[in-house]
Amino acid sequence: MELSKNKIKYFASFSKKKIREEEGKFVVEGNKMVAELLLSDFEVECIVATADWIAENKPRCDCYEATKEDLTKVSLLQNPQDVWALAKMKDHTAISQIHDLTLALDGVQDPGNMGTIIRLADWFGIQHVVCSLECVDVYNPKVVQATMGAIFRIHVSYVDLPQWLASLKNTEILAADMEGDNVYINSVPQNVVLVMGNEGNGISDAVSKLVSRNIHIPSFNTTGKTSESLNVAVATAILCSEIRRKNM
Amino acid sequence: MELSKNKIKYFASFSKKKIREEEGKFVVEGNKMVAELLLSDFEVECIVATADWIAENKPRCDCYEATKEDLTKVSLLQNPQDVWALAKMKDHTAISQIHDLTLALDGVQDPGNMGTIIRLADWFGIQHVVCSLECVDVYNPKVVQATMGAIFRIHVSYVDLPQWLASLKNTEILAADMEGDNVYINSVPQNVVLVMGNEGNGISDAVSKLVSRNIHIPSFNTTGKTSESLNVAVATAILCSEIRRKNM
Repeated sequence: MELSKNKIKYFASFSKKKIREEEGKFVVEGNKMVAELLLSDFEVECIVATADWIAENKPRCDCYEATKEDLTKVSLLQNPQDVWALAKMKDHTAISQIHDLTLALDGVQDPGNMGTIIRLADWFGIQHVVCSLECVDVYNPKVVQATMGAIFRIHVSYVDLPQWLASLKNTEILAADMEGDNVYINSVPQNVVLVMGNEGNGISDAVSKLVSRNIHIPSFNTTGKTSESLNVAVATAILCSEIRRKNM
Repeated sequence: MELSKNKIKYFASFSKKKIREEEGKFVVEGNKMVAELLLSDFEVECIVATADWIAENKPRCDCYEATKEDLTKVSLLQNPQDVWALAKMKDHTAISQIHDLTLALDGVQDPGNMGTIIRLADWFGIQHVVCSLECVDVYNPKVVQATMGAIFRIHVSYVDLPQWLASLKNTEILAADMEGDNVYINSVPQNVVLVMGNEGNGISDAVSKLVSRNIHIPSFNTTGKTSESLNVAVATAILCSEIRRKNM
C-alpha cells in the first residue's frame, strides 16, 4: 500500500498517549520485536517497512512500503530499524484469584523499569503483572521496547490496587520493604502476590495496610556507606529469583 | 559568582563526550546526587544552583547563582532540579589482583544498564568494576544519574579486557552464558571475577577463551515460549545475589 504524507503524519502521532488511547493501538518497532508480535495473539493493524523486509517476511496484514527516510519520520527510535508496526491493545481486566507467584506494581513510573519487569516476569514464569493506576502506561513505546517481546506473552492489568488486593482471598501479600524480613534466610511460599513500590517513595500507605509480610534484600556492603536502595527492576529480579529458587 | 551567557554555553557543552574528555570533568545533577558528590572524595570544580539551594547548602567550592531558566539551559535532564555540578574525573587504572567478587563488563553499551550495574555493585559490596574499552563511558550523564551516587564509591576501570584477565593469577574467571552451569544448584566461590557480556552479543570470543567456567540463570517459564535472555543489569543482580548468598 502507498505511504502518503498524511499516513506518515498519522502514524507518527502514536508517540502521544492520547492518540494511542483514543485509537486503542500501540507501536512496535524493530525486526525482533515485530517478529515476536507476528507470532503472538495480538492483532496487527498494519506494518510500515522497507521493500526488502516485506519481500522477506511476507506478513499477512496491511503493509506500507517505506524508504529509510519515511521510517525515520514514523519511528520513535533514535536509530529506526527496517520495520514499524501498529498493533491493537488488549483488554486489561485483572484476574480475581491468583494461583502462583504474581507481581503487583504500586506506582512504578519509569518506562525502562516497567519494561524490564515484564521481561523478567516472563523469564520467571510469572503470568500476571497487576499495575496500580499510577503506573506508567504499558503501551508507552519505551516500555514496549524494554520488554523485548515479553509484552506479547504476559497478562498486564491496570486496577485500583488497594481494592484489588483487598478482594483476594486466601492469598499472602508480600511487599518489598527496607524494614522487612531478610529474603535469604526466611522461607517464602510460591503462591503469593509480591508488591513492588514506586522508585522514589516505595509502597503507598493504602497498599501497605493490606500487606501480610514485608521482605527485604540485605546489603552486603560493609563500608557503612552504600546506596539507599536497589533499582526497582533489579530488586524485583532478585526477589523473584529467590522465591523461585526456594520452591524448586 | 556571576553566571554569564558564555559560562552557560561552556557548561552546556559537557553533554559532549569530547569536551568531557578534553577537560577531564563530568556533570552531576540533582539534590541527592550533588549531596553524594559533596560527601565523596571527588573534587568539585563548580556548582550552578538556585539562590535557595546555595543558601541552604553553603558548599565550599565555586558557586554560580542561577535562575530556573538558566538551569534548564545548562541541564541535561528533562526536568532540571535546583542544582548542577561539574566534578573532576578520577584515574581509571585497573587493580592487578583481586581478593573478592569483582565485576568485569565486556562491551556493556546501554548507559542505564551500566549505571544500574554500578549501583548494585555498591549494594553487594563489590569494590571494583572493570570495563572493556568497548563499554559505554562511565561519565556519560545517563550512567552517572543511573548510579544514584554509587559512582562516587565504586572503583571503575577501563582496560584491554582480554589482556587484563590473562594477567590475573590464581583467580577463577566466571562468565554469564546461556550454556553455563545452573547457578542455583552449583557452588560458586566468592573470590572470582564475574564477566557480563554485551546486550546483544554476550561475551566476546577473545574473553570467552579466558573464562574458567560459565554460569547460567535457568528460566522458570514452562510454556516453551519465553524471552531469550534477561536484561544484563538484571542478570548481573541475580548472579551477584546468588554468589553472596551462597557464601554468607
